[in-house]
Amino acid sequence: MQANQTVTAAILVIGDEILSGRTKDKNVGYIAEYLTRMGIDVREVRVVPDVEEEIIAAVNALRARYTYLFTTGGIGPTHDDITADSVARAFGVDISVNDEAVAMLLERIAREDLNEARLRMARIPHGAELVANPVSKAPGFRIGNVIVMAGVPSIMQAMLDEVAPTLQGGVPLVSETVLVNEKEGDVAHPLRLIQEAAPHVQIGSYPFFEEGRYGTRIVVRSRDPEAARSVASEVEAMASMLAKTREAAHKTS
Amino acid sequence: MQANQTVTAAILVIGDEILSGRTKDKNVGYIAEYLTRMGIDVREVRVVPDVEEEIIAAVNALRARYTYLFTTGGIGPTHDDITADSVARAFGVDISVNDEAVAMLLERIAREDLNEARLRMARIPHGAELVANPVSKAPGFRIGNVIVMAGVPSIMQAMLDEVAPTLQGGVPLVSETVLVNEKEGDVAHPLRLIQEAAPHVQIGSYPFFEEGRYGTRIVVRSRDPEAARSVASEVEAMASMLAKTREAAHKTS
Repeated sequence: MQANQTVTAAILVIGDEILSGRTKDKNVGYIAEYLTRMGIDVREVRVVPDVEEEIIAAVNALRARYTYLFTTGGIGPTHDDITADSVARAFGVDISVNDEAVAMLLERIAREDLNEARLRMARIPHGAELVANPVSKAPGFRIGNVIVMAGVPSIMQAMLDEVAPTLQGGVPLVSETVLVNEKEGDVAHPLRLIQEAAPHVQIGSYPFFEEGRYGTRIVVRSRDPEAARSVASEVEAMASMLAKTREAAHKTS
Repeated sequence: MQANQTVTAAILVIGDEILSGRTKDKNVGYIAEYLTRMGIDVREVRVVPDVEEEIIAAVNALRARYTYLFTTGGIGPTHDDITADSVARAFGVDISVNDEAVAMLLERIAREDLNEARLRMARIPHGAELVANPVSKAPGFRIGNVIVMAGVPSIMQAMLDEVAPTLQGGVPLVSETVLVNEKEGDVAHPLRLIQEAAPHVQIGSYPFFEEGRYGTRIVVRSRDPEAARSVASEVEAMASMLAKTREAAHKTS
């Protein structure tokens, strides 16, 4: 891989329970942090309901646009678990019960309990590779650049660990955080000047109000650690100048 | 409004910090629950970065498709706060400093502190109505069917309270939850039969593993409370039959 090649990803969360607010998603933040550490840029997230046409449209839009697409949810044994079938249709391939997946299920489920519903969890699109599930055995899978994972956070996290070594990593973004004792509206102008002079470094500004005190966290991100440090130093110098100006104004008033 | 008319919504979260995993979104679950209670169906969620073209594309795709679009994030004073400008461009309207919005800012900010950066928070697309911000004054706005809100959860929640009375509510979905002491794979088949006989009721199935015990929460949703109750009763009867079968099998084995 070229050092300057950017590896990107999207996350697709599948499930009515997230859209109704009944279940609060815990996977997006986890996956985003995980991939960011690997140098993979998460560029988009979508949440769609358990509706085949919606899943197919989102899978096809996102897999065409990003290096990887990670999906969560909808791979259990019930009638509303339609992710595997939808992904197969998105790729235009057949789907059937996969022997290797059945063997995995049998590590945990007695053969007499492997009813038709549980066998649904072994339905895998043709051409996909399985992603092992060390927690509850029913596997996820990867087809093309699409990685299909469970929605239960502990299982999803284990699947992500399984698949991570096979992913192409980018150059990780380095981030430097500067805590500034100023309101965001007071740092905004000098910050804009710093950003304009350093267009290849991303500068984010996050105001906070904690323990009765306003302040702003400035986060400088770059794939070049030296550039991040250098811009963070400028932000620190700016903050110290603003503080001095404020003290001077206080003394003369 | 017709009683059977469905009111729908999408949520668009704007911000690099969510995609990097640095900030964990707390707004989607809150808005989803809030709108669901009002009878508004959330059908889609997207998260996009602080990139004008991405915001414009998502705003235009989602506002065309759903009754309402709610956005969060990107309306502060810094260079990376580009939501208002992007929404103006999505609607093809001009944007400028709004006097009413300035008056709101002046309730909290001294006139001498109202610098150019803070004035950015009063830039409002032409044709929009302001959404008051009782927390920190800088307003959100509504243009057409798009409601633009802050990303800070306490402020977003206050804005949602402000705008809610102006929204068209639907007939709320009633939900009945049945806790079943069976693994999901054992209820999947009878549940599918119940679902097939009641296609207008949504049945969701959510397995859990708590305190060393497997079980499944079955959630029955409908806009018709009697239909929800009736199907929930069938699920209860199914669960009790499965439990009896299990006990009988236990005694004879």
